[in-house]
Amino acid sequence: MAIKSEAAKLSRSGPSDRLGRLRLSFSTIGAEAILVSHLPNVRYLCGFTGSAGLLVVDSSSATLFTDSRYTFQARQEVSGARTQICRHGLIRAVAAALRARKGRSRVAYSTAMTVAQKRMLDAGVGGRVRWVDDGGAVEKLRAIKDAGELRILREAAELVSAVFMRTTSDIRTGTPELAVAAMIESEIKRCGGSGPSFETIVAAGARSAWAHARPTERPIGKNELVVLDQGAILRGYCSDMTRTVFAGKASKKIRSLYTAVLEAQEAGKQAIRPGVTAGDVDRAARNTLKRAKLDRYFTHSLGHGLGLEVHELPRLGKGEKTVLQEDMVLTVEPGIYLEGLGGIRIEDDVVVTSQGCEDLTTATRDFLEL
Amino acid sequence: MAIKSEAAKLSRSGPSDRLGRLRLSFSTIGAEAILVSHLPNVRYLCGFTGSAGLLVVDSSSATLFTDSRYTFQARQEVSGARTQICRHGLIRAVAAALRARKGRSRVAYSTAMTVAQKRMLDAGVGGRVRWVDDGGAVEKLRAIKDAGELRILREAAELVSAVFMRTTSDIRTGTPELAVAAMIESEIKRCGGSGPSFETIVAAGARSAWAHARPTERPIGKNELVVLDQGAILRGYCSDMTRTVFAGKASKKIRSLYTAVLEAQEAGKQAIRPGVTAGDVDRAARNTLKRAKLDRYFTHSLGHGLGLEVHELPRLGKGEKTVLQEDMVLTVEPGIYLEGLGGIRIEDDVVVTSQGCEDLTTATRDFLEL
Repeated sequence: MAIKSEAAKLSRSGPSDRLGRLRLSFSTIGAEAILVSHLPNVRYLCGFTGSAGLLVVDSSSATLFTDSRYTFQARQEVSGARTQICRHGLIRAVAAALRARKGRSRVAYSTAMTVAQKRMLDAGVGGRVRWVDDGGAVEKLRAIKDAGELRILREAAELVSAVFMRTTSDIRTGTPELAVAAMIESEIKRCGGSGPSFETIVAAGARSAWAHARPTERPIGKNELVVLDQGAILRGYCSDMTRTVFAGKASKKIRSLYTAVLEAQEAGKQAIRPGVTAGDVDRAARNTLKRAKLDRYFTHSLGHGLGLEVHELPRLGKGEKTVLQEDMVLTVEPGIYLEGLGGIRIEDDVVVTSQGCEDLTTATRDFLEL
Repeated sequence: MAIKSEAAKLSRSGPSDRLGRLRLSFSTIGAEAILVSHLPNVRYLCGFTGSAGLLVVDSSSATLFTDSRYTFQARQEVSGARTQICRHGLIRAVAAALRARKGRSRVAYSTAMTVAQKRMLDAGVGGRVRWVDDGGAVEKLRAIKDAGELRILREAAELVSAVFMRTTSDIRTGTPELAVAAMIESEIKRCGGSGPSFETIVAAGARSAWAHARPTERPIGKNELVVLDQGAILRGYCSDMTRTVFAGKASKKIRSLYTAVLEAQEAGKQAIRPGVTAGDVDRAARNTLKRAKLDRYFTHSLGHGLGLEVHELPRLGKGEKTVLQEDMVLTVEPGIYLEGLGGIRIEDDVVVTSQGCEDLTTATRDFLEL
């Protein structure tokens, strides 16, 4: 099983094969071609990393539309598609290309496109296209990682784990949250990451109860919880991990809250395996907190997919019907937030294996008192 | 004139006044209320900095719709609007609120909303709303900065200028591009910025001809052009500056190319004043490069507005009709890109004054040989 799966993974690496797999979904979507507008999807399919690109994929060819800033870059990066440099807007060029197709073709598009873009497209194709919803076809492909992607995601998770272990020893009472965030982000680059995968969260004391707090100039106070949520981008792929530490000596109560969150995370991980729904996994973690009478403080969903973007499919939340599959990469991040007291969140990245899941994050989950 | 303008600026600071100015545009748009979905617009109008928020502004009140992660944060940040915490999706809650209004109301929305969001809204309001295009009403307000914003933008530009001057002395042949980017971004935080306003560009040698190159592990080579494009976020506001330096002793040809770009930038700045169009300014710079027979290597537009976002209104590009006004903040960034040889770009931030413009960027524009 493991061997077969390894071989299968190796056989489906690289952009050109991804285009092939995307084409297999054309009949399900009911389209003859697909217009890919979301940049991480464009990158996934043809390798282009620029900030302006639209990719049209049809049954036998693919064209990347970009602008003159990216002439040289596209030449180096793009594979599996030809490149067209557009002088008068990408959408206008795409519309002209679609209008020139024979007959009235069915073209899939993403509803994540803006209303304004869609209007320009409609005006440009002049009724020659029947639009169909792409149903998130590329996002669905991206949810299952190939061997090359898994290698990088593992490395990215190890990188940020190492960064945490290295920077955490420098955190002490009196250090401003922003200084800690700066250390973490600088260390990410020094370790070979191209940068943080989101704005690093360092939130101490009462502010740690803000699940998405931005770091401030405020120094970490004595006997405060500190939530550190950090991720690295490595060769385009994201990691994402949270640890909660204590500046001082924690009370018994704080320790027991930490343990409850850790147990909820463990219950979530235990529930992960191919065939269960994302909602099942969320429920496993939530029920553990319920038994500790803490579920009402767990105010967000349990986790999310991870890859070229720091949030991708699947979402691990209440009632989510997505069925987990082998080689999905997920975060598992229960958290509780008590106004005044602070917040505790513990987040790891895991990969779904044939039997369960495996941690990609290697940093300790012990409750550190600094 | 200056005194009057200063007083006028002081009289229109702060979120609540911004809501008032937005309401003045209701009659032009032909709406009784506006749904604000773009997050920097939400922040501008009510102060909320979270990652999930929709703001409904009507003639006498405003409501921020957000989720439970932001309960405490909204309480601290939001002014001029009440907050509604949504359990089942922000759009669903907004639609319910709009549906509950008396009669069939005309509500403005942004076409930067996604097709999917618009569909959910349409389904939710059940025909009780007549949608009208907001015509970029909030973006237009944001283009003219108030006194408080100008203070921060000036500080943000000075901050990144200081970072450039400090880090540039550490750049030498053999330093990897990524290491330079890491130094810059770390220094930004050390100087009090909350982070880079975009992924710092450090591109040496042939890669400097990629206008938007990402830094790589590649060490800077001897006698290479190095393009450094960097910006800082300070209290939410962005700066953006580019300098091109030379690792070694530059040839006469390279020096003359640098001078040509600097002259184009100067010509652009000279053209800036209230009443001219954005296209006029772009043309002034482009014509200077044309006289040097270099205009075909200037492959992008001259600049863009700068504020809560690193790209905002107005766009300084060919044929742009927007009329410049006092207190707009703009980048002026001509660049030429020669395949093989490399690129040269020089970018400053300026504020439009009553008579012309004033540099916010303080870093030297001398051609530095390192």
